[in-house]
Amino acid sequence: MIEVLAHLGTEEPKAGDPAKISELLRDDHGTTWVDIEAPGQPEAAFLSDVFHFHPLTIEDCLNELVDPPKVDDYKEYLFIIAQAIDFSASDESLATTELNIYVGKNYVVTVHQRPLPVLDHVAEHCKRQLPLVGKGPDWLTHTILDRLVDQLLPVVEAIDEEIAALEDQALQAADRSLVSRMGELKRSTLRLRWLVAPQRDVVSRISRGDFPHLIREETHMYFRDVMDHLVRLDVTIENLRDLGESVMAVYLATQGNHLNEVMKALGIVGVIFLPLTLISGVFGTNFSNTYMDSGWFGFGLMGLSFVVISAIMLTIFKRRGWF
Amino acid sequence: MIEVLAHLGTEEPKAGDPAKISELLRDDHGTTWVDIEAPGQPEAAFLSDVFHFHPLTIEDCLNELVDPPKVDDYKEYLFIIAQAIDFSASDESLATTELNIYVGKNYVVTVHQRPLPVLDHVAEHCKRQLPLVGKGPDWLTHTILDRLVDQLLPVVEAIDEEIAALEDQALQAADRSLVSRMGELKRSTLRLRWLVAPQRDVVSRISRGDFPHLIREETHMYFRDVMDHLVRLDVTIENLRDLGESVMAVYLATQGNHLNEVMKALGIVGVIFLPLTLISGVFGTNFSNTYMDSGWFGFGLMGLSFVVISAIMLTIFKRRGWF
Amino acid sequence: MIEVLAHLGTEEPKAGDPAKISELLRDDHGTTWVDIEAPGQPEAAFLSDVFHFHPLTIEDCLNELVDPPKVDDYKEYLFIIAQAIDFSASDESLATTELNIYVGKNYVVTVHQRPLPVLDHVAEHCKRQLPLVGKGPDWLTHTILDRLVDQLLPVVEAIDEEIAALEDQALQAADRSLVSRMGELKRSTLRLRWLVAPQRDVVSRISRGDFPHLIREETHMYFRDVMDHLVRLDVTIENLRDLGESVMAVYLATQGNHLNEVMKALGIVGVIFLPLTLISGVFGTNFSNTYMDSGWFGFGLMGLSFVVISAIMLTIFKRRGWF
Amino acid sequence: MIEVLAHLGTEEPKAGDPAKISELLRDDHGTTWVDIEAPGQPEAAFLSDVFHFHPLTIEDCLNELVDPPKVDDYKEYLFIIAQAIDFSASDESLATTELNIYVGKNYVVTVHQRPLPVLDHVAEHCKRQLPLVGKGPDWLTHTILDRLVDQLLPVVEAIDEEIAALEDQALQAADRSLVSRMGELKRSTLRLRWLVAPQRDVVSRISRGDFPHLIREETHMYFRDVMDHLVRLDVTIENLRDLGESVMAVYLATQGNHLNEVMKALGIVGVIFLPLTLISGVFGTNFSNTYMDSGWFGFGLMGLSFVVISAIMLTIFKRRGWF
Amino acid sequence: MIEVLAHLGTEEPKAGDPAKISELLRDDHGTTWVDIEAPGQPEAAFLSDVFHFHPLTIEDCLNELVDPPKVDDYKEYLFIIAQAIDFSASDESLATTELNIYVGKNYVVTVHQRPLPVLDHVAEHCKRQLPLVGKGPDWLTHTILDRLVDQLLPVVEAIDEEIAALEDQALQAADRSLVSRMGELKRSTLRLRWLVAPQRDVVSRISRGDFPHLIREETHMYFRDVMDHLVRLDVTIENLRDLGESVMAVYLATQGNHLNEVMKALGIVGVIFLPLTLISGVFGTNFSNTYMDSGWFGFGLMGLSFVVISAIMLTIFKRRGWF
Repeated sequence: MIEVLAHLGTEEPKAGDPAKISELLRDDHGTTWVDIEAPGQPEAAFLSDVFHFHPLTIEDCLNELVDPPKVDDYKEYLFIIAQAIDFSASDESLATTELNIYVGKNYVVTVHQRPLPVLDHVAEHCKRQLPLVGKGPDWLTHTILDRLVDQLLPVVEAIDEEIAALEDQALQAADRSLVSRMGELKRSTLRLRWLVAPQRDVVSRISRGDFPHLIREETHMYFRDVMDHLVRLDVTIENLRDLGESVMAVYLATQGNHLNEVMKALGIVGVIFLPLTLISGVFGTNFSNTYMDSGWFGFGLMGLSFVVISAIMLTIFKRRGWF
Repeated sequence: MIEVLAHLGTEEPKAGDPAKISELLRDDHGTTWVDIEAPGQPEAAFLSDVFHFHPLTIEDCLNELVDPPKVDDYKEYLFIIAQAIDFSASDESLATTELNIYVGKNYVVTVHQRPLPVLDHVAEHCKRQLPLVGKGPDWLTHTILDRLVDQLLPVVEAIDEEIAALEDQALQAADRSLVSRMGELKRSTLRLRWLVAPQRDVVSRISRGDFPHLIREETHMYFRDVMDHLVRLDVTIENLRDLGESVMAVYLATQGNHLNEVMKALGIVGVIFLPLTLISGVFGTNFSNTYMDSGWFGFGLMGLSFVVISAIMLTIFKRRGWF
Repeated sequence: MIEVLAHLGTEEPKAGDPAKISELLRDDHGTTWVDIEAPGQPEAAFLSDVFHFHPLTIEDCLNELVDPPKVDDYKEYLFIIAQAIDFSASDESLATTELNIYVGKNYVVTVHQRPLPVLDHVAEHCKRQLPLVGKGPDWLTHTILDRLVDQLLPVVEAIDEEIAALEDQALQAADRSLVSRMGELKRSTLRLRWLVAPQRDVVSRISRGDFPHLIREETHMYFRDVMDHLVRLDVTIENLRDLGESVMAVYLATQGNHLNEVMKALGIVGVIFLPLTLISGVFGTNFSNTYMDSGWFGFGLMGLSFVVISAIMLTIFKRRGWF
Repeated sequence: MIEVLAHLGTEEPKAGDPAKISELLRDDHGTTWVDIEAPGQPEAAFLSDVFHFHPLTIEDCLNELVDPPKVDDYKEYLFIIAQAIDFSASDESLATTELNIYVGKNYVVTVHQRPLPVLDHVAEHCKRQLPLVGKGPDWLTHTILDRLVDQLLPVVEAIDEEIAALEDQALQAADRSLVSRMGELKRSTLRLRWLVAPQRDVVSRISRGDFPHLIREETHMYFRDVMDHLVRLDVTIENLRDLGESVMAVYLATQGNHLNEVMKALGIVGVIFLPLTLISGVFGTNFSNTYMDSGWFGFGLMGLSFVVISAIMLTIFKRRGWF
Repeated sequence: MIEVLAHLGTEEPKAGDPAKISELLRDDHGTTWVDIEAPGQPEAAFLSDVFHFHPLTIEDCLNELVDPPKVDDYKEYLFIIAQAIDFSASDESLATTELNIYVGKNYVVTVHQRPLPVLDHVAEHCKRQLPLVGKGPDWLTHTILDRLVDQLLPVVEAIDEEIAALEDQALQAADRSLVSRMGELKRSTLRLRWLVAPQRDVVSRISRGDFPHLIREETHMYFRDVMDHLVRLDVTIENLRDLGESVMAVYLATQGNHLNEVMKALGIVGVIFLPLTLISGVFGTNFSNTYMDSGWFGFGLMGLSFVVISAIMLTIFKRRGWF
């Protein structure tokens, strides 16, 4: 599905007709933004025929594999692979979708497999940001990448908060489902790190001026701003790992603690009953001619010994700090 | 076993007669692909006499040691060591076999100890990729390396999925065989990392133009494409380690949990029976002249105390959350 | 809230009227220090209109996000983000607040969200450091950064001491609250590392002369002095992590030890009572015509066997080192 | 003990008379190899007087400290410290001995404290490698280093195999001696890493041409070959650490498993006997006028209850998967 | 306390009068070594007035903070901070004291808070090292640093040996005091690493010729010798960490082992007594008209059943490998 999301000329940006793209591209001063969703063979042909993009990049756009973010310089255009959070995925764990961006002299082409509402937000944002004079493909690319990164922060913070909540929960009870949830968070964290670290390299290369033929110097500091956000994300994600280990430490301590408590309770109750049972057994032996058959007196004696022995043992356990 | 797998000239590629290799090599515009399987002394002499390869490289081809991937520049030719998955190995764990590649001006020589069907696929692929004009030894080398790397992805994904399955399994029961399987996966992962990381360096050096006399600039981006795949593999393999630790954490938590459950069950049953046994012992003492010999009344009293005490204890345990 | 904290001219430094800032800024030889607390829209307009700062930096000043320390060179001025300990936060864990510093040719502008008493201390320090001739914006910036770093040392040392105290505590008893406290300290440590490492990069870049147009060479060694403090902090913080692991090791060892002790106590008491109970049961069997009904003699025999068996078992346990 | 191991001239190599070394050294085209074992004061004087080596290097040769491998350039000669496996040590753990090598224009001097049979092998190898024309001190140094490295591979593989064997053993039983053996292997591994990593740096510096005045370009690729072996060793040693952790994980899992099994066995047996003992106690109470004194009928009733209760409990345990 | 420890001229070195230091300093060819212990205000004034040292360095000399080793170049002199082991500290853990060294054209000034016998040894060494011609401040600095580093080796080896001893001890018994001792060793190791790593950087910078105006080229290799020692220390310290982990692994394995042994002993004894107690209970029931009242025959039967059941159970446990 090919769509002209915006044409940023001297006038108001407007969505254009895909059929007239060649015409738009002849305008050297404006910026044409072409968006392709769920590309198939016709879209591949379009990219190849109209823009003459390299077959390797078109293959990257079409395959369903998840590629790590990167930027490649093809002289005429930059080919950027970025990863966006896919909020349409109903899954519990973190899902991402690939966003391929071609940045040319007077155009930006975005290609993605699944719908990305964030691009529509950028298109709307373009319409409000008047005047657009001088805001070329580099500015548009920055805006798209900035929005992608801004999407990540709440995701990372949600994981951070859930880890803190799991730590509190682990302090209460050693519920094993918590370990499995930690495993899922770990997978999400690994995925985020896998995503953020190379994205940072991509933005870093753009911001330090590696592509002067396509990214003007005055937009460098905008990309540096995006990189600052990525650095913050990167450090936070790195910390998530340490915090996750902390949760597991609390979990194991709670589990060990629970075992100790059960053992203590068993110990106290069991050890108190042992002598009592022995005494009742002794009074049940068959020896006659002893004081044992003296009725209430012996029975009272036995009861008294029960009370005294229990009291002594409880005192000992108390002193040992067993309860 | 020396075989001419393909001769890529202006015409259709064709397998050639090993005896006429010198003749083929005189053709500067075509590319002769010689494949040697299970090299012995005659093959070594062939490599030395026909191609004048350096003795160190021929020794590397002949010995059975597993060398890490590398690329060496001998001016006249490049000597590349790569590692291929050996699917013919019936073993459970990951087996690899060494593929040595010589890349010259108008030839590619591949040497390997064990049969590699992937090379036949490349040879077939060559026949379908017409026209072959301009597709020299560098293009052929890229195709071979690309196929080798493509073989790795399903292997890595299979390990990733097995680790996820083991984690689910560890949540169910702390079966010790799982730990031993994790150990095998760890070995496979280490082997893969050992294989991928230097292979990445090899392709990286080729793709950034370290060998301009043998690798033309227009094929650089094809090697960069192979490197992107290797980067993705590298990151995924790195994550496998963290996920493996996660499995062990779940395993230990399940094991500890199981111990706690057993202790609780023992505790509940044992502690309930303790007072009951004591009571029956008390009623079995020899004191006469007490209400104890009053028959059914005393027996009912005992039964009632059994029920009451059991109920009280079960209530206490329930409140403590023991079951 | 805009305030002129100091104007360092040839005369005594004096607080100035914010309304006359433009006039002060015309003085090329003095240094005007403008401080802005809790910036809002008017302050943003002030920064933009009077100083013409870049919109991205003003946005950084206004947003409430916690940015990692950095320094950006805008030719006319440096924009520094530093992090100060926020002692006004009543929270248990470590709180920081962002301090944004603009360093120009003849001015320093500090912007922060929350009150920072440390700035008032610097202002007072300025008044006492006469003569101020030659002490320009770079010297003032150094003084502010130096004080920020000096605030960190007692915080890091407090954490170090608390970890040592927790280790002692862990040796005494495996109190689980300790694990949770360790988790909080870990969070504080991560926050400190997050803060100190990039701050070190900032000061390092200034001290090695990356900004010769704004930082004079004679103040480099003052910044190097600040960096030495940051290096010391960095190493100490790195060690806190290892020490924290040590606490957890002691904790787990104490917990395991406690379990072993409980098991031993249970074992000794329980195993001693087992034969005694059996003997009393044997003497309670119904066999007549045996020596069992011989009254005191049999009873004494039973008592004797109790003493002998207990003594034997205690001796065995003693030899095994069970207590 | 000073010995002339070989003199590689245009003729056959021959061992020479130490007294005539000065004479041999006057031959600029041959290579004199002097070997010194267990150096003392006379040998130190010899090194100082005949070769004029720097006092620091002679001190390194004489002291018994174990120095990490290094290469120092003294213009006239290279001073290399390498470490060789000392197979004469009868110890269980890995022992190494220092080999100091001086490489000059037309001589190689090797100094070592303990006998090194590997040097004799190299000397014999020299005699077989005719013609020796053009094989100077650099070629001889390469041969010595190559043999030293070749000695390491079987050692590393032996450790690898023993770790695999320990892992199998840990799966069978949690024998504590295994942990102690793992500790010894860890020490050996650390020692190997300590030895291989700097040796790799030494060979790397030689192979990349840092010493063109003493190492000719045509021998570079021989040193690169040695480095390839060292790289393979380095990676394998790095993996040993991970595999060692895997053994410990299996060990702890087996230990925890064993504890769980014991607890289960105790639980099943103990819990089955509890109700049976209670029933026998109940039938032993003194209540008369009940059905309890009805002889065989009551006895049968009791036996039946024993069987029924045991069967019910075994069924429950079976269902819970306790055995 | 200011002292002239040595004056190395063409004549014999001699201690000088502090009052005549200015006179000594006028001698450009000799080297004056001034040592200051426990510096206070007068010493600070002396350093400032006589040598004109930078106030920042004097502040570093006076404050009691422990600074990491570093070297600063003030053109006229180098300012070096090193750390020496403080053997006068009676503490169990490792104590260090700061040694500040100024290296000028014809003087060395050492400043330290606590007495350092190592400096007196160096002074004595100077007197014995005749002739001293050409041994300037750089040689003296090398000698001081060399001695400081030589002090470290026995300390590191003592820790290494204690860790090995703790590992042996951990194999015998899981004594918790061992964990606490490991914690102290960890602290000492961290302190050593904190000390050695930057000291290595300091010596590395000196040895590679960063300060040609004060350190002559002929002394570089002496500093390189010191660095070799520091590298060896660094690697050894790094290994201490791994060995410490090994001790903890042995400790936990021993603790778990002990728990397993206790559980087994409890299991064997407890499970054997369970059926015996039940049998005695059964023979104690009140059923008349059975064979139970048949006196010695029944009693013998009971005794026989005790022996048979015990024997069967012991056989089963033996087969299961429980003891």
